[in-house]
Parts: sequence; structure tokens; C-alpha cells
Amino acid sequence: MEWTDRTPSTHQLRYPFPMAKLAYLGPQGTFCEAALRRLQPDAERMPCPNVGAALDAVRNGEADGAVVPMENSVEGAITETLDELAWGAPLLITGEYLLPVEFSLLARPGTELGQIKRILTHPAAHTQCRGFIEKELPGAVVIAASSTAAAAQEVASPASPYDAAISPAIAGEYYGLVELASNIGDRKDTVTRFVQVSPPGRLPEPTGADRTSLVAFLRDDHPGALLEMLSEFAVRGVNLSRIESRPTGDGIGRYFFHFDCEGHIADARVGEAISGLYRLCSGVRFLGSYPRADRVAPKIKPGTTDTDFETAAEWLARIRAGQV
Amino acid sequence: MEWTDRTPSTHQLRYPFPMAKLAYLGPQGTFCEAALRRLQPDAERMPCPNVGAALDAVRNGEADGAVVPMENSVEGAITETLDELAWGAPLLITGEYLLPVEFSLLARPGTELGQIKRILTHPAAHTQCRGFIEKELPGAVVIAASSTAAAAQEVASPASPYDAAISPAIAGEYYGLVELASNIGDRKDTVTRFVQVSPPGRLPEPTGADRTSLVAFLRDDHPGALLEMLSEFAVRGVNLSRIESRPTGDGIGRYFFHFDCEGHIADARVGEAISGLYRLCSGVRFLGSYPRADRVAPKIKPGTTDTDFETAAEWLARIRAGQV
Amino acid sequence: MEWTDRTPSTHQLRYPFPMAKLAYLGPQGTFCEAALRRLQPDAERMPCPNVGAALDAVRNGEADGAVVPMENSVEGAITETLDELAWGAPLLITGEYLLPVEFSLLARPGTELGQIKRILTHPAAHTQCRGFIEKELPGAVVIAASSTAAAAQEVASPASPYDAAISPAIAGEYYGLVELASNIGDRKDTVTRFVQVSPPGRLPEPTGADRTSLVAFLRDDHPGALLEMLSEFAVRGVNLSRIESRPTGDGIGRYFFHFDCEGHIADARVGEAISGLYRLCSGVRFLGSYPRADRVAPKIKPGTTDTDFETAAEWLARIRAGQV
Amino acid sequence: MEWTDRTPSTHQLRYPFPMAKLAYLGPQGTFCEAALRRLQPDAERMPCPNVGAALDAVRNGEADGAVVPMENSVEGAITETLDELAWGAPLLITGEYLLPVEFSLLARPGTELGQIKRILTHPAAHTQCRGFIEKELPGAVVIAASSTAAAAQEVASPASPYDAAISPAIAGEYYGLVELASNIGDRKDTVTRFVQVSPPGRLPEPTGADRTSLVAFLRDDHPGALLEMLSEFAVRGVNLSRIESRPTGDGIGRYFFHFDCEGHIADARVGEAISGLYRLCSGVRFLGSYPRADRVAPKIKPGTTDTDFETAAEWLARIRAGQV
Repeated sequence: MEWTDRTPSTHQLRYPFPMAKLAYLGPQGTFCEAALRRLQPDAERMPCPNVGAALDAVRNGEADGAVVPMENSVEGAITETLDELAWGAPLLITGEYLLPVEFSLLARPGTELGQIKRILTHPAAHTQCRGFIEKELPGAVVIAASSTAAAAQEVASPASPYDAAISPAIAGEYYGLVELASNIGDRKDTVTRFVQVSPPGRLPEPTGADRTSLVAFLRDDHPGALLEMLSEFAVRGVNLSRIESRPTGDGIGRYFFHFDCEGHIADARVGEAISGLYRLCSGVRFLGSYPRADRVAPKIKPGTTDTDFETAAEWLARIRAGQV
Repeated sequence: MEWTDRTPSTHQLRYPFPMAKLAYLGPQGTFCEAALRRLQPDAERMPCPNVGAALDAVRNGEADGAVVPMENSVEGAITETLDELAWGAPLLITGEYLLPVEFSLLARPGTELGQIKRILTHPAAHTQCRGFIEKELPGAVVIAASSTAAAAQEVASPASPYDAAISPAIAGEYYGLVELASNIGDRKDTVTRFVQVSPPGRLPEPTGADRTSLVAFLRDDHPGALLEMLSEFAVRGVNLSRIESRPTGDGIGRYFFHFDCEGHIADARVGEAISGLYRLCSGVRFLGSYPRADRVAPKIKPGTTDTDFETAAEWLARIRAGQV
Repeated sequence: MEWTDRTPSTHQLRYPFPMAKLAYLGPQGTFCEAALRRLQPDAERMPCPNVGAALDAVRNGEADGAVVPMENSVEGAITETLDELAWGAPLLITGEYLLPVEFSLLARPGTELGQIKRILTHPAAHTQCRGFIEKELPGAVVIAASSTAAAAQEVASPASPYDAAISPAIAGEYYGLVELASNIGDRKDTVTRFVQVSPPGRLPEPTGADRTSLVAFLRDDHPGALLEMLSEFAVRGVNLSRIESRPTGDGIGRYFFHFDCEGHIADARVGEAISGLYRLCSGVRFLGSYPRADRVAPKIKPGTTDTDFETAAEWLARIRAGQV
Repeated sequence: MEWTDRTPSTHQLRYPFPMAKLAYLGPQGTFCEAALRRLQPDAERMPCPNVGAALDAVRNGEADGAVVPMENSVEGAITETLDELAWGAPLLITGEYLLPVEFSLLARPGTELGQIKRILTHPAAHTQCRGFIEKELPGAVVIAASSTAAAAQEVASPASPYDAAISPAIAGEYYGLVELASNIGDRKDTVTRFVQVSPPGRLPEPTGADRTSLVAFLRDDHPGALLEMLSEFAVRGVNLSRIESRPTGDGIGRYFFHFDCEGHIADARVGEAISGLYRLCSGVRFLGSYPRADRVAPKIKPGTTDTDFETAAEWLARIRAGQV
């Protein structure tokens, strides 16, 4: 069984800079590792107990990069990642990967479906596979594990009191389990977006289908502040693809914002929009410009191409120089 | 020891309709129970294993209401609550409570501080009390529990291998533990906002310092859609106090939005703004208008009082009737 | 020669309420009279020396209505009309007419083109017919008259020192002149919009292709005030077809605004937008809702039909009544 | 009698570049000449029959500059000036002057107030002095002249059938008339704004209290186009002090726009706003940046000073260079 053949090979971009060693959200066998293997197939992989530890490994030089989950199409934002990127020492997102979330029912070799009475998995996986369990394993009890990979690890032990794990297929590979059923989630289209994080430095080149991530802190939390922030993007024709509010920690009602916008900061319209945001806010942290995993190029509003900006800048320069 | 005397008695509003029985996020001894006891001191309390179960207890009539966490000033939104309110059968938020998050170090009677080697608590509590532990209990090991209340319950057992729990003080009351240290969190101002949820029905009366919660689904996810939604509020002078994006489940990049705005839906400006949102969106779910726990009345933009709306409506009616 | 056969009979709407007597901007033979004859063919016509006098005739009951020029596609707004409608006793616009501005070269019977040396006309007509004069009457001198109709009247006098007038064809009818050349303007598509004004009272019925005119005075002249006014329309999906700033008289930099918007004040979206404007401004004067002369129906933004407003209002009413 | 001592010497700025010869709206004795004499006291003055002729004198080199009226606090925009600046060969506004409009009653020496039966003046002056005439000269007849200066010229002729002129005091100086009454207008605060126009070339230096004038043509006349234009200014914190719509000549409902905004095009916020307008529109004509006559410095929105723009640009450059 080879896990990679289930993920679509279309519109997935491999980040061009090879990295020798990457940290990721472990243990071995997580979806995060699966994403890492697609992004950097040849890299050494360093599992970490949580997102913060994976990012710290990049910050302190133990790893050349990290792969961490950013958001899931059902569960939403991974707030630990949002907060770690916003508050810790600066890092740079240099790639992303959209991984279909496909759960497998894994058991020790020799176990048959009819024998499964006790299933170990993470509660989120339990929720997402409820339909399968009710239909195929109606009498089984589900016990909560700290992660789906950890469930597989536990089940692999011959002495384990559990009969099966619901885990990524990749975990079965690691722990020597057999896949009794694959892609057993109730929704077949669940996806997690993972990002590849690098130390601060050179940005990926613009590709025409890029995404830019950033964090903005309000100067003061007046009514209409969010509207003003969105206007900075809208006036330059820059579309936002995601917005998340996060608490600043200073009390209920005090938030900062994560934005993903279409385009690369090297694009004139994106640069001007983010400069406007920078002037408007008490602080803006740039998190990176990187190729979109879905390779969808944005629709450009008339008047906002790089050429339009150049032409306007030349016109302005001539006027200021008295060459009307 | 009496837990209630630590919470400020100022600007906390008790919901006027007495409820005989309320579900809450258990087990006994959670912060959620503490909030419930402030909101409805005389009610029977029904602990539930998760937010969904507590809300379902209201939906199916087992409880007259529920108290669940909505957001925390450090951790952010409780996404389980957001999603349960957005997707399940409709319910009504009828009150809120801001509970300071104060952790206590709890141990079995007779235990002294110097004896504590193994501490049981929820990872989030561990994170928030890291400074205290490093300073006061430098050699102690911290083990993860599923909730802070469950940690107290476990430590209460004479045979427990753990010496202490980090939990709400209220949990100590329940499980017969002694409070060795109180309010040990690194940040002293952490607050969780809890909401009281009722079956659909009569709304709380406007008090002049109210909050309205709702959920909006975009008709189509075009660029600028969020800006349009915010404009519906801004044009009527209605301030938003919170906005959260949540995935619709239909793939990365598809979101719906939770809004909290200032004012009561009985206010003319709020009603018109939400009607505008209703016309703009494919769906709007009203989640409730209820007294703000902080009792802060909004600053009213000139021209947006109820009287202003009435005067304008009368003027319009006269004009339409040809009485210019 | 019959002047009426030159004006397009398409998309011109006759105002349904017959009026016995209408004032207009005289003297006899003006474009204004031509417009009046199209709007109210059977009415008695009362020429007035200026727009203010024509409107005052309606105000004091001497006339049942008036027809006055509002704007010209080359010269722009007729500011006298804008100011008279804004400041005098209220009146109601109940119709409009788009009259092509076609100039004729008129002379006493027996005069031939080659004999014309001295031409009398209004300076604006001179400007608009400059090409014709240069080509056909290169040696002729043009002398300024107070109006094109007055020019025709003067030329009609046998003792007149002028050989020809440039005037509306209708003026030739009145004063017994012969049309030596017709439609001699350099631009063939110049149009003047005339409005029919009534005493305050019943509004014309909505037709689906209506226009609404109004005047708005700012509460205070802060930056962004105009943007706020436009937002009141934009949020309700109401398009503006014309905006004019006019001085309040209180000094340079103090303006009020004339707006024409698409739709009828009986339309829900228009009514709500104008109510919003009314709340925003220190004063709004409604000038009328009336059928558009061009019969162009507006494109309706999704969510802003009368049905959408009704549905939203019902939804809001149910929510406020606790019937969620 | 010296006319100049009536105009406030406060906050009026003399344009620094001396001009040898300036065209103006004549004849001698107009308010326009009075403004010119304040702006360029030592220049040779060249009266022209209309605004177009005065501007053409600059275009063809007959004059070094021109002074023409732009707007009046009662009558509004001088549309001839707006259109001549928008459509003819480009010129540059390099200064402005706010001239109080003060009318005098002028007569031939020896005439007494009681003898005045026939008054000659321009209709606008008649309108503005109606109160004085009714009170002081109740039996007098007022006859219309083509301009107030021309009225003075006519009355100066010993054979004139008119007893007095209502004109600027300066006209009395020219034509040897006596001032029987001064500042007789019903409103004492009427002001006309005149602009000094130069050939294209070097701009006046920024002074901190400047105004910028420009003309913008819409790319297409879609609903919301004006709102988009205003947003380009608003987002950069640039306040508009005047907006005028003018017909393009292509039919009713087709307009272009004159804007005056606060600040100098050398200001970063103004430059970026106008560049944004340039990208949005099918055409933008810059008309000039020049010191405000009232010397009022704009209130700067936080985040929009030149320093703020520089800081943001440096930040952006660092990010783009990978120096996060």
C-alpha cells in the first residue's frame, strides 16, 4: 500500500528550494508528515510534539524548515499555528499544500473486520467517521487518543486492548498495521492546508498564482477599523481569501487579524495595499508570499496590473517634475 | 473557601427569566459551571460531556437552557460552540457572563506545597500557569488531563498517583481538595465569555447595553463580499464587536461568518442593518439579543437613534402620500 | 413646417394628469415651450421671463404647473432651476422630457442665404453653430441677443437691422420667419432635459422606469461627508444618475447637493436609501419621483427588489416577536 | 477712494513668480481685475472678452498668465472656466485669490442719491442688491447690462440715459464715477474664488496649506463609479474640498468630474491618491497644486504623513528584499 497514490497529482506545487531537514507536527504517521513528504520528498523529517516546537526548531536552527497545519476545511483555522506565527520570532511561509484528509481503519495483521470491538482514535476523526462506524461496526466502542497517529502506534502493540485505529494510511505503514478500510470519512472532500515555513530570508519568486499571508494589529480598536483594513485591499483590487480574528490577550473584544490575500508582495497592487495597511495599523507582520497550491490565478481588476501601476507612477513623476 | 467572592460583582447581569434546569459543559467543577451559578444561582445543573450535548439537551427539552463557553481572551473563539449554534436546530442566546479565569493549585487535605512532584491539569491550564510552576514548583512534572475539572476529580482519589491539580477553585469544593495557591495564572486578566442559551422564543428586553449575535452565509463568495457585509452595519451606525470566519465545510476558502454587534435587534438601526444583511446573504441565522455583561452602552452615531428612524419613517410616509 | 416631426416619438412619456395652464421659460418660441407642447399638448401656455417667475407662477396658483430646463448635454446643469427648486417653497417634479436641441437659420420671407450679413442669436447658440457659420456664411457677423427666441422676434420686425436669427424652429412659426437651414448645430446629438413641475401633492405612479430627484444639505461639512451620502444609496443598490454640488451661500467650500437616482420613492430600496440620507443630513428636500423620459428600467442588484425588502421585513418581524 | 483697503490683508498669498503680463476677464474694472491686482500688483493687465480668450492668450503666448473666476460663494462654479480648463490645451493653476464681492453704487460726479431713477447693472448684481434698492431707491428702475464693469463704462458717458451703475468700486476708478454707496449687497460675505493660470511647467512649491485641482473622466459610467473615485481619496486620507460634475457632451447622464483636494501633489498621500484615480479612470488631467488663499492647513489623518509613507515604503522594500 502506497499512500501517495490517493492524493491528486494535479495542481500541487513542489517548493523549489530543497531543504535538508524539516520539522513537523508528529508523531510519525500524521497527516502533517504526509504533506511534508509531498512538499519535500527527499528531506529528513523531524517529528515534534506540537506546532510551537516545530516552529521553534526552525527558529533555533535545528531544522531548515517546518511543515505545520494552517486550516482544515471542516475544523477551520489551526489557532495554535496562527498564534505561533503571529507572536514568536518571525518566520516565512514559503509554500503550501492541500492534503485530502482520508482516514483508514487500521488493525494488526490477522484482525478481521468482524472482530473489531474497541477502536482508538482522535475525537475529531471519530466525529468525521461516525457514519462509517454506525454502518459497518455498529457495536464497536470508540476510545479517545491524543492523535490519530498515536492511536495507530498504540494499536500496533501486541498487548494493546484496542482492536483498531482510525488513522491516516501513512500511520499504518509506520506501525505495521493492515488497512481494513480506506477513506472512511463521512465527507469525502475534507482537506487540510499545510504550510511550509522557512527562516526569514529570500521570498519565493512570483508565479502569477500566489498567496500572501500577514497579520495586522489595530492601532486602536475603533468601530469601523476592520472596514478600513478591508478597504486598503479593495481599493487596490486585492482580494482576500481568508480572514481570521484572534484575541490579543488583552481582554474580550480585543482582536488582531490574520489575512490571506491573492497575489505576491512583489505585485505592485499587493505591495501598495499592504503598505497602506502598515500605515493604518499599529503593527503588520508579513508572513510570506508563496505559490498557491491550487494554482488559481486571480482575476485582475482593470487598472491594477503592474503595468498600470508603472504607467501611473511615470505620469505622476512627470507631473511632479512640471512636465504636464 | 467560597469561589464566588473573587469574581467582580460589578456590571454582571443576572438573566431575569429563572430557569429550573440548565445543561453545561461538565464535569462538575468547570469554569462553565461557575458561570452558570452566577447567571442562574438557583437552577438545577446538568453537566454534559461536550458543548454539543449541552445544546442538544435544550433542543430536546431535557434542560430549560444551557451555559456554554463562547470565547476566551487568550485562546479565542470556542469553535465547537460557534459551529453548534450555526448548524444545529435554532437556539437563542439570552445572556452572557464574563468569568475571570483563575486557576488554583488544589491538593488532598494534608498535602504541603513542598511535597508536590506530579501535577495533573489540562494542557491549556499548564500553558497559562507555566510561570508559577517554574518559580514555585521547579522540580514538578505536569501530566495532561482531559479537563481541569477532571484533573481535580482524579487527584481527589486517595490512590491517585498525582499530588495536585491545577483547576478552578470550584472544582476543589466539589472534590474535597484544599487550595494551596490561588489565581496562579501568569496573566491575571484572562476572561472567558459564557453564553446562556434558551430554546427559541421570547427575546430578552432591550436594556440600552445589549449585544446581538448572528451568523451569515454568503450568497456567493465573490471578492468584496465581506466588505459588503460590514457596510450594511457601518451605514446604519452599528458597531461590530466580534467577527469570526468559519469554514462551511465545502473546501478551503469557503467561509461563513459569526458577528456580534452592539445593540438589540429591537433597535431600529440594528434591525435595519440585519435586514440588509439578510437581503445580501444566502442565509442569516439570528442567535440572540441579550444584555452585555460589561453593561457598556454603545456610542450612538448621530442620526441612528430610534427616534431618528421614526422621524425619517414618518417623513418618508408623508412624501409617499403626497404630503410634501 | 411642423416642428414636432423632428423629435423622436419613441420613449417620450406624456404626463397623465392634464394641466389646464402651464408656465414656462419664455418668450414664445423657446425650446422650453417646445418641450411643454410635447408634455402637455392641450394646455394653455404662459411664458415667463425667467425660471424663478415660472416656478412662482405655480407656487402662487397662477399656473397649474410649469416646464423649465434642468440640464443640457453640453452646457450642463441649469443652476437657476437647481437653486429655485432647492430654496423656494416646495414644488414637485412630475415629469421630464428630453428635447433634441436643433437650431434653425430663420429669416424674413424673401431673404436668401447669400444676403445674410448680420445674424442675431444667443451666445450659446452661436458657439454651438460656429462650424455652420464658418462654412456657409463666412462673411457674416454674429450679434448677441438675450435669447434665441428673442432673436427671432427681433428679426421678424421689418425694420430690423439683422438679416437672420439662429433659433428653434418653433420660434420661426411664431414670428413668421422662413427656415433657410435646419439642424445647423455642430453636434447633432445635443439634448436638453426639461422637467414638468407641479404644486406639492400626489406623486406620479411608479412605472418601473422612474427617476427620483432630491436635494441634501450636510449636517456638518466634514471630510468624507459626500462618501457617506453616496454609501446610503450604494448599500441599498440605488444608482445615482446625476449629482451636482451647489454653494449654500455661506462661503467658498460650503455646498449642498442635488441628486437624481434611479427608481421611485415608492420602491423599497429608494425609500430606505432616502430615509438614510434624511437621517444623515441636516435637511433633505424631496423634489419628485417621475417617469424617465428614456424609459430605461434600472438593473436591480440582487437582494433589493420590493419582494426582497418585504421578505426581510417579515423575517425581522418574526425574530423580534420571538418566532425564530 | 482706494478699493484695495476693503479686502482683508490676512491670509492672502501672493504668488511668488512675478509675471510680466496677465490676461483676465475684462473689461477694465471687473472683480477679476481686482483679483489680478492683488495676485500680481506689478503686472501688465490684458482684458479679454471671455474666459476662453483669457486662457487662449496664455496658450498662444500673448500673456504670461491669466486670472479667471473659478467659483462664487452664491452663484457656484463658473462652468466656462471648468470646461475651458478641462478641454483646451493643458494649463496649470498656480495660485488662487478669494475676493469679497462688494458692489458700489456709482454715478457721474454731481449726481445725488435722490436723483437716481435709472440704474444699469448685470442681472446677478441686481439680484444681490435687491434689498438696498428697495430700501434706498424704491422708485428706481433697473436695466440689465452685459457686465457690471460695462455698466460703469456706459454710465460714465455724459449722454448716458442711466443715472447710476452697480459695479465694483474699481470700475468707478477707471471710468471717473463717484461712489454714492459702498458694499450694498444684501449678503455681506459673498466671495469669488479666482485662479491664476500659467503655461504648463514648474509647480509652486508645497507650503503645507495647498490645494490640488484635477479633472477625471470615467472609464465607463457604471453605478458606483463616483463612489470608487471618492474612495481613492478617502483611503489615503485626502479630503476633497470641491466636486463638480460636468457633462461630457455625449448625452444626458454622461459626466466628468472636477475635484479640488487638500494638499499638494508632492505630498505622498495626494500623489498616491491621484495615481489611484489615474489607474481607475480613462483619463485624469492635473490642473495644478498651489497655495490655498485661506492658508488653512489640512488635518492629517494618522498614518498619512510623508514620513508615514516613507517608513512604509522602506518596510515594504525590506520585505521584498527578503530582509524580514
